[in-house]
Amino acid sequence: MIQRIPVVEKILSANDRLAQENRARLDTYHVFSINLMASPGAGKTSLIEHTVRGLADKLRLAVIDGDIATSLDADRAAAAGAAAIQINTGGECHLDAVMLQNALTQLDLSAFDFLIVENVGNLVCPISFQLGTHQNILIASIPEGDDKSYKYPTIYQGVDALVINKMDLLPYVSFNMDYFLRGVEILNPGVISFPISCRTGEGLAAWFSWVIKQVFERRD
Amino acid sequence: MIQRIPVVEKILSANDRLAQENRARLDTYHVFSINLMASPGAGKTSLIEHTVRGLADKLRLAVIDGDIATSLDADRAAAAGAAAIQINTGGECHLDAVMLQNALTQLDLSAFDFLIVENVGNLVCPISFQLGTHQNILIASIPEGDDKSYKYPTIYQGVDALVINKMDLLPYVSFNMDYFLRGVEILNPGVISFPISCRTGEGLAAWFSWVIKQVFERRD
Repeated sequence: MIQRIPVVEKILSANDRLAQENRARLDTYHVFSINLMASPGAGKTSLIEHTVRGLADKLRLAVIDGDIATSLDADRAAAAGAAAIQINTGGECHLDAVMLQNALTQLDLSAFDFLIVENVGNLVCPISFQLGTHQNILIASIPEGDDKSYKYPTIYQGVDALVINKMDLLPYVSFNMDYFLRGVEILNPGVISFPISCRTGEGLAAWFSWVIKQVFERRD
Repeated sequence: MIQRIPVVEKILSANDRLAQENRARLDTYHVFSINLMASPGAGKTSLIEHTVRGLADKLRLAVIDGDIATSLDADRAAAAGAAAIQINTGGECHLDAVMLQNALTQLDLSAFDFLIVENVGNLVCPISFQLGTHQNILIASIPEGDDKSYKYPTIYQGVDALVINKMDLLPYVSFNMDYFLRGVEILNPGVISFPISCRTGEGLAAWFSWVIKQVFERRD
């Protein structure tokens, strides 16, 4: 096991270099990009579908979907109207910068304003591999329970915004919002959060406004 | 990256050797053991609490809880009445055989019939690291969505039984059980499944009976 650490460090520093190249490429074309992370089934693809439809007349949107297997997510993003590319990691539990770099070569970045990169469903590994996107976004989901901010501190610490999905399920599960948000605040003071429901549409308007603001701030 | 493969292979084969040692130790003491895996928030700890309470008068039960951080899960298992040990992986996204080996030294195995090892909440990495337990159990959760058997095939292929939790949420989410189970059947034909709700208690009796049968089959 002693040999393992330097290998992992070498991989991570190579990843960071490629992430910087990805960022430079995205900046050249003024594309605002997010790395969307969550547990399996928290609603990443549902949020993407709503965002694609909700912002279709305001932004030119592309989606890169990371999954271990299948093209189910890219199919859903494409059906919603986005340019969509699927990355199959073949077992890897996270995206990395080289996977994103390869996917970016398949997009004409001059044709887009906003790129969503959907990471593999996993609350642990994805946050250790920067992709070069501008913001890391985490989706928490009400039925996951209110202790997740305490139990997965690294990802909660490392994100720029938090979406809290499935608010419509609050009456049917045991979830103490004060307790959950106290954990978030300890780890990531002041982080912006968006309580939403992809099912009812609650809260999506605030999320859309924030995305538009991020895109146009980078334009000015 | 070329150097990475042999290092990973070496780690995996060392892990398998330790897993065999763990199995031999558990068999010596006639302890039936399961490796309980799931996404974050699918209900691993809730199922453990119910199992500890439901089987308290029939089995002597121990729990080893794997988490990145906190002792919240072991605290809950102990409050339910089990002997509970917490492993904090310090960032690692899965348990491995050496972590279990260390935890086993803290238990007097002659005092127990049934050991539940609760893995880190993750649908990807845990299945690659055998622990030496007798059965791999996966908990799926209704609000995660019906496509998870297709999107996380490795873990669905590698388990000996499937618990489907949060059945009480079926009326409030979009989940096609036929579609989900078709994916399960393709990957793992004939695998036994237990539809349950830790909230309402639905289906728990069948799960308890199965556990008891596994324990006593190994005794005879």
